Amino acid sequence: VAVDLGGTNLKVALFNLKYKLIEKQVFNTRQFRTKGVLIKAITNSVRNMLGHNGIGIRQVLGVGLGLPGPIDAQKGIVHFFPNIPGWKEVPLKQLLEKSLCLPVFLDNDANLMALAEYELGAARGSRFAICITLGTGVGGGLVFGGNLSRGKSNATGEIGHMPINEEGPRCNCGGTACLETYIGNDRIAAYARKLFKRDISLEELSRLAKRGDTRAIKVWSDVGRHLGAALVSVVNLLNLDCIVIGGGVANAGKVLFERIKEVIAQQAMRVQAEDVRVFRARLGSDAGLLGAAISVRRKN
Amino acid sequence: VAVDLGGTNLKVALFNLKYKLIEKQVFNTRQFRTKGVLIKAITNSVRNMLGHNGIGIRQVLGVGLGLPGPIDAQKGIVHFFPNIPGWKEVPLKQLLEKSLCLPVFLDNDANLMALAEYELGAARGSRFAICITLGTGVGGGLVFGGNLSRGKSNATGEIGHMPINEEGPRCNCGGTACLETYIGNDRIAAYARKLFKRDISLEELSRLAKRGDTRAIKVWSDVGRHLGAALVSVVNLLNLDCIVIGGGVANAGKVLFERIKEVIAQQAMRVQAEDVRVFRARLGSDAGLLGAAISVRRKN
Repeated sequence: VAVDLGGTNLKVALFNLKYKLIEKQVFNTRQFRTKGVLIKAITNSVRNMLGHNGIGIRQVLGVGLGLPGPIDAQKGIVHFFPNIPGWKEVPLKQLLEKSLCLPVFLDNDANLMALAEYELGAARGSRFAICITLGTGVGGGLVFGGNLSRGKSNATGEIGHMPINEEGPRCNCGGTACLETYIGNDRIAAYARKLFKRDISLEELSRLAKRGDTRAIKVWSDVGRHLGAALVSVVNLLNLDCIVIGGGVANAGKVLFERIKEVIAQQAMRVQAEDVRVFRARLGSDAGLLGAAISVRRKN
Repeated sequence: VAVDLGGTNLKVALFNLKYKLIEKQVFNTRQFRTKGVLIKAITNSVRNMLGHNGIGIRQVLGVGLGLPGPIDAQKGIVHFFPNIPGWKEVPLKQLLEKSLCLPVFLDNDANLMALAEYELGAARGSRFAICITLGTGVGGGLVFGGNLSRGKSNATGEIGHMPINEEGPRCNCGGTACLETYIGNDRIAAYARKLFKRDISLEELSRLAKRGDTRAIKVWSDVGRHLGAALVSVVNLLNLDCIVIGGGVANAGKVLFERIKEVIAQQAMRVQAEDVRVFRARLGSDAGLLGAAISVRRKN
């Protein structure tokens, strides 16, 4: 059983051992007003899904959850959620295990998306990968030698908060000139608004770039340049063999990806630049669910 | 047996199983004009040292070598040495094993210094550490979860080639605004020359800073600011628990270290900043030899 909790949607899904999706239920997260109600919704959905598929507890390996915030994966504790109020140091693993009588595994969504792309997606066959999600925030997960690289507090992969200049815009995290302050969705939209002198969605910006619009191409090329600068740091430091880029912005397509590859080829060290390949994420919006399912199989 | 080959000195040493130094021989590297002569000098020194200490081949675990350039540690091949001519794709492990009849382990010097600080020095007890050497170049080694993190081609840890700005000085590596272009020894000396309007050694600069000289303090504070900027990227990406800083520049002392800690505290994400501690390297100039000895014990 896989659960993907986001600020907008709660998804619950049942997979077989080959990671084939058997059933998926999607809820609006905001309808669950309190922590208790939200946890109840998860357990109800799991029981209901197992019930009407005729699957008994003993046939289930466990429940994996992808969560939108900092998690102690080992102890199974949610520290807090930036976008869902009312959660603070919640022993969610313990609560769910007691209620469902199944082993439960927690992790943050960026880690699980990285795990999914590593096992079943664009990073398959690689050994040293970063998987990046471009959205309002810019997050990432690191897979090193086949395992998630968690660091001291399960807080690795924050490529969005690597400063790419010594001076620049202030970031919500308290830092200065973080990558996210250049290529977070809102920043891209604001930059495009300046160039086009009107509101323009990122979707339209991608369509225009594909049709050859010079201003749209400039926007994505600049996004690629900023992201490339951070990735030069990452590959020189970590000698990766694979970079996977997903999230809405990854739809910008060729202009963006070509620019990123160009920056790495020109600016990174020779060995590091030659070792690394850059791919678009393959698993789309179900990557989080798949990663949660995989985490059950790997028992972490 | 441990060997530390540098552009200036070749050191060969004998350690007991508690890493106590039994004997050390130091040679001027430049007297060995060819690759063959240099290899011969290593094998002669090893044989000679074992001989007059009355130690037989069977009492020796193996020979570890720290080398000043990119190495394929697994295959035991030296790709090349930036500062010693005549080495290209040399199967050094095989050559030495044949000649010495002992297991031989190769690695680059930055990795071995990191390993030594991790096992016996300032990073002892940590689990996610970077060990940085400040010199003409700025290098580093990563220890993750107790093991050297090597990446695809054993080329991790190049913190000196993380760009800290999108625009800035060109670097020898082909990149732009790499950390090394701000805080490599020559760059620090050039910056100091400007402020003092005369040639001034880094040693003097450290002494002056300790005595409260404003200009010297400014130099080290700026070095700390640049290095801190790169370290903010590193800790946000890797959630380290330990940063070890060695090499001549680390003697600058308090001003430098306080500035680095200040930048991390102010600019890095809260969890990552709280998790990490910054130490001065403890093992001094024999760190490379110790790391080479440890690599034999660890068989890698």
